[in-house]
Amino acid sequence: MNLYSIKEPSFLKEMDEGELKILAQDIRDFLIESCSRTGGHIGANLGVVELTLALHKHFNSPEDRLIFDVGHQAYIHKILTGRINDFDSLRQYKGLCGFPKLRESEHDVWEAGHSSTSLSAAMGIAKARDIKGESNHVVPIIGDGALTGGMALEALNHIGSDRTNMTIILNDNEMSIAPNVGAVHNMLGRMRTNTQYNRVKHDIEDFLNRLPQVGVKLRDMADRIKDSMKYLIVNGIFFEELGIKYLGPVDGHDFEELSNAIQISKDYNGPAVIHVITKKGKGYHPAEDDKMGKWHGLGPYKIDTGEVLGSKSTPSWSEFMSNTVLEHAKNDDRIVALTPAMPVGSKLTKFQNELPERFFDVGIAEQHAVTMSAGLAASGMRPYLAIYSTFLQRGFDQLLHDVDRQNLNVFIGIDRSGLVGADGETHQGVFDISFITPLPNMTLMMPKDEIEASQMIDLAFSHDGPIALRYPRGNVKGLKQGGNSEILEYGKWELMSEGDDMTIISFGPTLDLALEASDTLKGAGIKAGVVNARFLKPMDHQMLNTLGSNGKPILTVEESMLTGGLGSMIASYLADNDYNNALHRIGIDNEYIEHGDVGKLLEDIGITAENIVLQSKLLMEQANAKQIKN
Amino acid sequence: MNLYSIKEPSFLKEMDEGELKILAQDIRDFLIESCSRTGGHIGANLGVVELTLALHKHFNSPEDRLIFDVGHQAYIHKILTGRINDFDSLRQYKGLCGFPKLRESEHDVWEAGHSSTSLSAAMGIAKARDIKGESNHVVPIIGDGALTGGMALEALNHIGSDRTNMTIILNDNEMSIAPNVGAVHNMLGRMRTNTQYNRVKHDIEDFLNRLPQVGVKLRDMADRIKDSMKYLIVNGIFFEELGIKYLGPVDGHDFEELSNAIQISKDYNGPAVIHVITKKGKGYHPAEDDKMGKWHGLGPYKIDTGEVLGSKSTPSWSEFMSNTVLEHAKNDDRIVALTPAMPVGSKLTKFQNELPERFFDVGIAEQHAVTMSAGLAASGMRPYLAIYSTFLQRGFDQLLHDVDRQNLNVFIGIDRSGLVGADGETHQGVFDISFITPLPNMTLMMPKDEIEASQMIDLAFSHDGPIALRYPRGNVKGLKQGGNSEILEYGKWELMSEGDDMTIISFGPTLDLALEASDTLKGAGIKAGVVNARFLKPMDHQMLNTLGSNGKPILTVEESMLTGGLGSMIASYLADNDYNNALHRIGIDNEYIEHGDVGKLLEDIGITAENIVLQSKLLMEQANAKQIKN
Repeated sequence: MNLYSIKEPSFLKEMDEGELKILAQDIRDFLIESCSRTGGHIGANLGVVELTLALHKHFNSPEDRLIFDVGHQAYIHKILTGRINDFDSLRQYKGLCGFPKLRESEHDVWEAGHSSTSLSAAMGIAKARDIKGESNHVVPIIGDGALTGGMALEALNHIGSDRTNMTIILNDNEMSIAPNVGAVHNMLGRMRTNTQYNRVKHDIEDFLNRLPQVGVKLRDMADRIKDSMKYLIVNGIFFEELGIKYLGPVDGHDFEELSNAIQISKDYNGPAVIHVITKKGKGYHPAEDDKMGKWHGLGPYKIDTGEVLGSKSTPSWSEFMSNTVLEHAKNDDRIVALTPAMPVGSKLTKFQNELPERFFDVGIAEQHAVTMSAGLAASGMRPYLAIYSTFLQRGFDQLLHDVDRQNLNVFIGIDRSGLVGADGETHQGVFDISFITPLPNMTLMMPKDEIEASQMIDLAFSHDGPIALRYPRGNVKGLKQGGNSEILEYGKWELMSEGDDMTIISFGPTLDLALEASDTLKGAGIKAGVVNARFLKPMDHQMLNTLGSNGKPILTVEESMLTGGLGSMIASYLADNDYNNALHRIGIDNEYIEHGDVGKLLEDIGITAENIVLQSKLLMEQANAKQIKN
Repeated sequence: MNLYSIKEPSFLKEMDEGELKILAQDIRDFLIESCSRTGGHIGANLGVVELTLALHKHFNSPEDRLIFDVGHQAYIHKILTGRINDFDSLRQYKGLCGFPKLRESEHDVWEAGHSSTSLSAAMGIAKARDIKGESNHVVPIIGDGALTGGMALEALNHIGSDRTNMTIILNDNEMSIAPNVGAVHNMLGRMRTNTQYNRVKHDIEDFLNRLPQVGVKLRDMADRIKDSMKYLIVNGIFFEELGIKYLGPVDGHDFEELSNAIQISKDYNGPAVIHVITKKGKGYHPAEDDKMGKWHGLGPYKIDTGEVLGSKSTPSWSEFMSNTVLEHAKNDDRIVALTPAMPVGSKLTKFQNELPERFFDVGIAEQHAVTMSAGLAASGMRPYLAIYSTFLQRGFDQLLHDVDRQNLNVFIGIDRSGLVGADGETHQGVFDISFITPLPNMTLMMPKDEIEASQMIDLAFSHDGPIALRYPRGNVKGLKQGGNSEILEYGKWELMSEGDDMTIISFGPTLDLALEASDTLKGAGIKAGVVNARFLKPMDHQMLNTLGSNGKPILTVEESMLTGGLGSMIASYLADNDYNNALHRIGIDNEYIEHGDVGKLLEDIGITAENIVLQSKLLMEQANAKQIKN
């Protein structure tokens, strides 16, 4: 059939297995070709082609609610719900979102970029159904990796106890993002290999039925043994213990097995989990053969070889950070590194290979990662926790209650700080300054380049108390590290460019825009100084006093939320100390920033050299007008 | 022995069971008497007298690390480590902390007021031990309630997978704070009642050994059945599945049983859990008989009757909020109420009794509570989530990613906002304004009294989008609700008292201090207006423009962190709009506030009518000096 004519998924009901197989192949071909041009989470989606077709065949979306955990595996769902024509713009500026999106389709009932939310969402949606007396099916689809996230376990606990009617699809591809971690994973592995138990089920039952009835005592024993058969027969002890019916394991690429399991779950009154085994990258060798998660989410690639396009001239920020930390760790036994499921994303694999006993990938478990870091520090270690800004949100209370309040020597590398581009609004790293700076003991830094980052890492490992270093997505500048690296003075900002008329204060990558604007302004007769506010907390009070005393206008520029951002802290400081400088702020004003090219997003927000120039001129005009008035 | 002479716990090693029993009784008597004067978490501590004695007898603290989850059950630990003389000041200003405290004793190795952190902490501490090649024991002590918290499950998963050597004490008192919720709890219940299985263990093994060897097939079956015996014999399937050796259940008031289990766990190389059954309130009838958690933490009481002292003239804020929400729910089927394990604390028991099908106690699972609320809202319900400010920190990412980003109609009642007193720095509700106001879609309010609260609840249930209402610990004023209640205009502040010279802006309980200060200032010739900033987000721009235009000094007063607080937002707004008002801020300046009488704590911070008067005068002087200068 012509994929481009699909408007909604009801046509699947009439399809037989042969037709479904052809359709699956067509969708695979389309995805491999389309994503080779746009990039995307191709691996995860190739793994769930048959599963998604089966779900849309046997359930009635949108009446039945399909809730995709994380959501980057919803491409087939998007195709089946009439969005194939938008795939050319996948994850691009104002284009098709890489995750389910409420406003794109009535079939998208839940948005998620972060992991492990689907079961709690399903619980809410199912209880709403029950209260309203409706009878639709609720179907969360969750990966094995997401199941290690604490909130998914909290939800399972509640669902099992409440016996809420729903069909949980456990999409077990044996690899979440990186190879999976933890006991839950091992358990799932045992389930997968235990299928032979099913074969002896009848034999054992026959055997027990043939036992001579030699009195009550032995009969009781036999009954108990029979009860215990449950543990042989049903492999999903973990789920059964929690009160959730376990079905599977099921081959996620076999339509008949999927159909059978879904039918049973639909007829079952209570919570059931279908354990579906899928293969990430199924049907496309470069993605199938990937063991380390390179094909989790990626840019455009060559179809025949799987070679990812676009040359990388300099190391990524993640790589630079992790390798520099590794060098420190080689000389300091107290240094250990932790990641919540992102050894590849955070480029910690080299650390893992060279110092395996001091490396911990704790799986998708940000809360545990933060508090375990605190535990390590409480015993005199110097943990380095690499964590994406957006995922640190998950560990906020742990950062406050366990790390900061106990004033422990935890060093946090906040990866993907600022805008992240294609992953969009669930992943932008723009809230961390607002939620970290109120914590009394924290130090928060952001370097302008890798040389400064190196100095900050030196400082971090000799600092007493919790300290965090934000670094952006993307690559470092490729600067040569100096032989005799300067020692960074704690809390000191840097005057990068002098200017008597006004001052532009920024930090991180946007400093380059500030410097460019300063140059342009010079041509317009405005001498704008540029200050590198590399410490977000504590701020450099000496520098602020100098700026406050000279009374010249200040413009702050930050790739971050304005509320609780650097500009707001400077406004407060100026007020507290009775300085009267005019102050304007550029940054994100109370909105979520969607997916797309970072350059275009920055333009929309007004974080460009042009806008810095424009705002500087306005600020100067205003200040001059006020001076004349006074 | 004389309890008052105890300096450290090593004397326990020489004690026999008889002596331990006498000591346990002495400690119980002391706790019942001492807490009757100071208040405190008496119930939890009476439950762990024998357990704590056994732990200190068989482990060597501080070399062996005892890590108390939550920590309010560490009173006996404090007595055994030489702090009995400080119990008169328990939970009081500058007195003995109600939780473990690093600076009080080397035996306190981990601080915790929030639940479920001990296992992650233990994992960090144990890995540090292993890396350093040390051999001490690591002993987290966690309650059954705390085990439903996601991060505890994240940690169990990691511990089981890593096979880290530690002894987990699962203190199962069948009631965390409120009666326990969830499948994990049901499972623990099954374990408790399954002890009879142990008795048939040998019988079954004998039976299997006597089976005729009728060929490979039957032998295989027998082996499988034997394997499955594990599930009969070892009751802790859940833990065993996760890779953690299960020991128990053990009577937590029987020294011999405790001793045996601890010895086994010490000899075991890997993670073990000792399932200890204790009785909360053991040995004191009023606390033993408590089914609803009244005796969880409380004030002074009469020893003979258990009657709690101190008359309550007006309802608590929690009671007022929950009952008002209940009235709304009776007229609106879409309203449901949720609490993470605090039905009593948040006074939702009446709601639970009257509308059980629309009430959800999800257990200690704040993340799940927030996202389940989002799920309910996504299906058209109007969930009301009552949650303490300090515990909302646990659901921060869920509030951002699931509730706010999807702009869902979730109404959050933020209980215990502001200072909470005796529970101290882990429980102060002073960060929520800083972490909520950066979220683009949120509305955040705080009422000055219960009449305004009632109007805000009306508004909340008709508002589109996420909305939160902060309310303090303590009681409402006892005002009479007006017959024709005014409708509160969204986002509008209230000018409570006019004054041409300057304006004091505050919200919630501190408004009374502002009004009192304003009166005093009048006597000193300063006319200070008072503004009720009842909407923290959005702020009232019209009011701010009026204040900005008149250019008079502004003093903000908030029982909250200054960083990211109302004052900082006003400073930013004034700067953004080129207003030049002098602005000073009173609030918490970058420090954690410890336990103690709220009045004394407020005095230390400077949140008093006297200090508002003083700061107002300074502000006026400064403003006048500047005017003369210009």
